[in-house]
Amino acid sequence: MAQKPSIPKGTRDFGQVEMARRNYIFDTIKGVFSLYGFQQIETPAMENIGTLMGKYGEEGDKLLFRIQNSGEKAALAPEKGLRYDLTVPFARYVVQHREEISFPFKRFQIQPVWRADRPQKGRYREFYQCDVDVIGSDSLIGELELIQIVEEVYRRLGINVCLHINNRKILAGIAEVIGAPDKMIDITVAIDKLDKIGVDAVNDELRERGLSDEAVAALQPILNLSGSTAEKLAALRTILASSEVGLKGVEEMEEVFGLIETTGVKLNIELDLCLARGLNYYTGAIFEVKALDAQIGSITGGGRYDNLTGIFGLPGVSGVGISFGADRIYDVLTELDLFPKELQSETQILFATFGTDELRYALRWVKALREAGITTEIFPEPTKMKKQMGYADSKHIPFVAIVGGDEMAQNKVMLKNMASGEQRLVSLEELLKALKS
Amino acid sequence: MAQKPSIPKGTRDFGQVEMARRNYIFDTIKGVFSLYGFQQIETPAMENIGTLMGKYGEEGDKLLFRIQNSGEKAALAPEKGLRYDLTVPFARYVVQHREEISFPFKRFQIQPVWRADRPQKGRYREFYQCDVDVIGSDSLIGELELIQIVEEVYRRLGINVCLHINNRKILAGIAEVIGAPDKMIDITVAIDKLDKIGVDAVNDELRERGLSDEAVAALQPILNLSGSTAEKLAALRTILASSEVGLKGVEEMEEVFGLIETTGVKLNIELDLCLARGLNYYTGAIFEVKALDAQIGSITGGGRYDNLTGIFGLPGVSGVGISFGADRIYDVLTELDLFPKELQSETQILFATFGTDELRYALRWVKALREAGITTEIFPEPTKMKKQMGYADSKHIPFVAIVGGDEMAQNKVMLKNMASGEQRLVSLEELLKALKS
Repeated sequence: MAQKPSIPKGTRDFGQVEMARRNYIFDTIKGVFSLYGFQQIETPAMENIGTLMGKYGEEGDKLLFRIQNSGEKAALAPEKGLRYDLTVPFARYVVQHREEISFPFKRFQIQPVWRADRPQKGRYREFYQCDVDVIGSDSLIGELELIQIVEEVYRRLGINVCLHINNRKILAGIAEVIGAPDKMIDITVAIDKLDKIGVDAVNDELRERGLSDEAVAALQPILNLSGSTAEKLAALRTILASSEVGLKGVEEMEEVFGLIETTGVKLNIELDLCLARGLNYYTGAIFEVKALDAQIGSITGGGRYDNLTGIFGLPGVSGVGISFGADRIYDVLTELDLFPKELQSETQILFATFGTDELRYALRWVKALREAGITTEIFPEPTKMKKQMGYADSKHIPFVAIVGGDEMAQNKVMLKNMASGEQRLVSLEELLKALKS
Repeated sequence: MAQKPSIPKGTRDFGQVEMARRNYIFDTIKGVFSLYGFQQIETPAMENIGTLMGKYGEEGDKLLFRIQNSGEKAALAPEKGLRYDLTVPFARYVVQHREEISFPFKRFQIQPVWRADRPQKGRYREFYQCDVDVIGSDSLIGELELIQIVEEVYRRLGINVCLHINNRKILAGIAEVIGAPDKMIDITVAIDKLDKIGVDAVNDELRERGLSDEAVAALQPILNLSGSTAEKLAALRTILASSEVGLKGVEEMEEVFGLIETTGVKLNIELDLCLARGLNYYTGAIFEVKALDAQIGSITGGGRYDNLTGIFGLPGVSGVGISFGADRIYDVLTELDLFPKELQSETQILFATFGTDELRYALRWVKALREAGITTEIFPEPTKMKKQMGYADSKHIPFVAIVGGDEMAQNKVMLKNMASGEQRLVSLEELLKALKS
């Protein structure tokens, strides 16, 4: 026999149970996106390599999967690469289709991306991203709606979360007032690690990145700001009094929290000045969502960007977006045992028969049940009853209709409840009634 | 400004309207698959190149998109290629996971595939396939259920179709009785073209492929068999009397038509002895579905295979499957104007406001509507009313709630029906009632 076949390292097959669970996550998220008027788009798996190169830093360029051109004219064709995220294809899409799009453009996109990363636990070479963005407006209603979407998605999924929010303008203001206005990126990269490496290591890193001792000292009270959101914002107003951009950031946060209050958002929301997010294109609000009952890091994140489409020649278009991490949400739902039980089987009933005549007889029942919208299977051969029951067991099918000569003679079937083991003889009408309830 | 970005030749972006329509097709098909107890799986976009090579003929090997390995150990890693169809990955999946699978294994799979074909009208380098198969049983209930699925999918989509059915064993029997038992493939390849090139050209091709004049002559009455299905099958019983495999094929067809009658299938079904289908792995029933009101060729096709998994070392597992052509179904629905009108917009109502206070006021209404499950948008800025109405128009949103100072003072909104132009002042309760009906 040939060697058992396999799939490339870092990729996965999804069987029926995993697919039912993944679809549950995607359908829940899509349902909420739709309710807010976001509409789905899809872009090709392959992009011209020029669209991708230089967008993810030097490290990212190395992690692009490139496609070999085939055929005679291979040398002439533009090189291609597999989609690395959904953000760059989205920016490319907006610029390419700008004449057809009504702005503000509210889109979502759920597709796989590919990265030639070293595979490890929880890190795959093929995985789905699930992005929602509104682009073409700088109204903070955008931020509000994303926060409401986070609230509603996790309410529906039953996961308790906390949304951490910060603002890049506040971070820029902090860099200004501590006397290191050119170090905003260095500061954000360093304090982004606060959770992981602690305050001393962050301070060391800040010094390594060229911050003076005075600047590091000036930063400490800001990192340690506590109290209610209103208190934090009031303190920041004072601290950032000399920074125009910093005050603008405070103002934006005040407005966002005002909108949150107006609309009665009940989500846990924390103004977290240590939240930085590594991506350079963020210019306003930044978000991260953490599950409260699982140790898994961020399960959703995003922020406001003012110039995402600038890389493709369309500057000055502001947008805000977030991305749901489907794999991590899957892990949280598994860990907390929150997947609905009915996902185990879509099939409600299996017909199992003792002979060829019974099989034919059962086919009409099967048809009637399906016409009533009941997901129904029939074991295709009148083989050993044990085998047929085993099939129902392995697929977690809750009911089996057993059909032998006696049942057929009475125009009935023997309905077996697989959980309780209980059996009773039922007519088609009784069966429909039992399964519909 | 930089050059306008573009996407690789033969690939497509799908905007919101196309996605809504594509999702309508996929959701309809998935709904029917599920009703029959078929469950979804997904396989990675990339397969090891050894999984793909040699499975699609020499021409197919050339059309595989290969992935370049990146990183230091590139030379050591196994080469990879993009999925070319869903059949080979399915066979690979069944063999790889055979210990976890309950047979008969009823699976469906809806994913894109990639072929480095020359792009032309209706032929893309990235396109979706939509396959449903039951594997691990040779019961003809499999054929029956696929026929029922075809009937139900096209009933739900509103497309009138005819299903053509034939059997490879009958074709083998014909080859035997006309004295060319080794020419079954040549005969099927040639008569597969009957529709396109006519009977004379087919006969020429048969002679070129080495059939004697006698064999070609003997074939003619079979190609011209007419009458009802029962009459055709009766005639075949006589013609194929000396061929064991041929009679087995006739028997299978009789049984399938018997099952069709038992279950009251109303689909147009034609026993079509000229249907051959090019793929070599078919060994029993073969199907093709054509739309009656559109000139577009086959929109669904498939058949029975006895040894698909043999290529991966698991011989003797019989299955039957069909594939729905989503792109062609899309074209038929477009041509016949059969897409439901409500796909034009998911958003039922847009809130348009005259000022910042009105915007804040409207947010609470928006929230109440969404909580009632009504897809609602709010234009995020109180900009010119014309612009806000233009947004509603371009997104085909049927209702706009206009909010000015007067409305706000009365705790109402002005509800505008965008189709009729009619406007009336409504309370939140009245609005909910109007939108729910």
